[in-house]
Amino acid sequence: MQQIIDFIRELDKLKGITRKNRPLGMDRFENAAEHSWQVAVLALSLAEFADPGVDINRVVRMLLIHDVGEIDTGDRIVYAEGGWEEHKEAEMVAARRIFRFLPEPKRSEMMELWEEFEAGETPEARFAHAADRAIPAILNLAFNGQSWVENGITFERVVARIGAPIKAGCPVLWSYLEVRLEGEGAFLP
Amino acid sequence: MQQIIDFIRELDKLKGITRKNRPLGMDRFENAAEHSWQVAVLALSLAEFADPGVDINRVVRMLLIHDVGEIDTGDRIVYAEGGWEEHKEAEMVAARRIFRFLPEPKRSEMMELWEEFEAGETPEARFAHAADRAIPAILNLAFNGQSWVENGITFERVVARIGAPIKAGCPVLWSYLEVRLEGEGAFLP
Repeated sequence: MQQIIDFIRELDKLKGITRKNRPLGMDRFENAAEHSWQVAVLALSLAEFADPGVDINRVVRMLLIHDVGEIDTGDRIVYAEGGWEEHKEAEMVAARRIFRFLPEPKRSEMMELWEEFEAGETPEARFAHAADRAIPAILNLAFNGQSWVENGITFERVVARIGAPIKAGCPVLWSYLEVRLEGEGAFLP
Repeated sequence: MQQIIDFIRELDKLKGITRKNRPLGMDRFENAAEHSWQVAVLALSLAEFADPGVDINRVVRMLLIHDVGEIDTGDRIVYAEGGWEEHKEAEMVAARRIFRFLPEPKRSEMMELWEEFEAGETPEARFAHAADRAIPAILNLAFNGQSWVENGITFERVVARIGAPIKAGCPVLWSYLEVRLEGEGAFLP
């Protein structure tokens, strides 16, 4: 029990890891903990659009812990260029450190979920990636392109970076977003 | 799809609902969105201590949406005296308003999860309540009793308010917390 409690206290640090999006209408940046919550609820809400074989409970579990590595590395906007291999390697080292707080078999179970998400190869991981890539777009489209504008991300780069993974994991979601991106793309550089 | 997107954007407001706990070592108060994430991960991590029949996936779903009513009502510390019936009624009206963004059957499914949590009668709801009541204690015990000290909550009131629900939903967790509360209760008024 003490190991679980220590794990939960360690995870508390995720509340201090800021991302590039701001909650709608707020000045501050969102943090990785509230993001993890929102993307898990998005996946739950989108369940009917997942492929029939997708285990949505596994998707939710993955999303709840997919960002824990950022406790050590910080968040990195998906539009950053270069250095991704080193960043991903550092996140894996961090995830291992953090899940080590847990007793077995929970430790391995969580690490496997984290690795499955990172690999992005199972239907569950693809669906989880679609939700994770879509959420900044869902927020930005309702907030004048906030994080894209602030970081000088062009319409073309948005589509190039998030289009394929969203389409692969949840085609209906991409059909919806693509039209809105084109229609409201005027605010993009 | 538009209904789901509107729902997720409405939920974004939960990031602005502050609670009485502060993230460990931070000045600001935590918000209900990051709390919902942390309590869901706590439930997942505690799964082995749930009664054999408990569907942990249902527990996680409940916890992810248990606080959405606070978007309209704000958070209320569990130690507040009186007015609970009115507060709970207002939260239910708010939950209905918010889940109405969703299409059926998602709308009813989420509302049922929310009501099941509120009623606290199923094994899943009892386990979810145990996690929800335990998390402020888990944080406070690592932060000099922060929210209890700031709100003048005595050791006796802590035990009286959180003891029974934690014991009912997860006895092992209460055994753990009870000893720590007694041992470190010195910081309490």
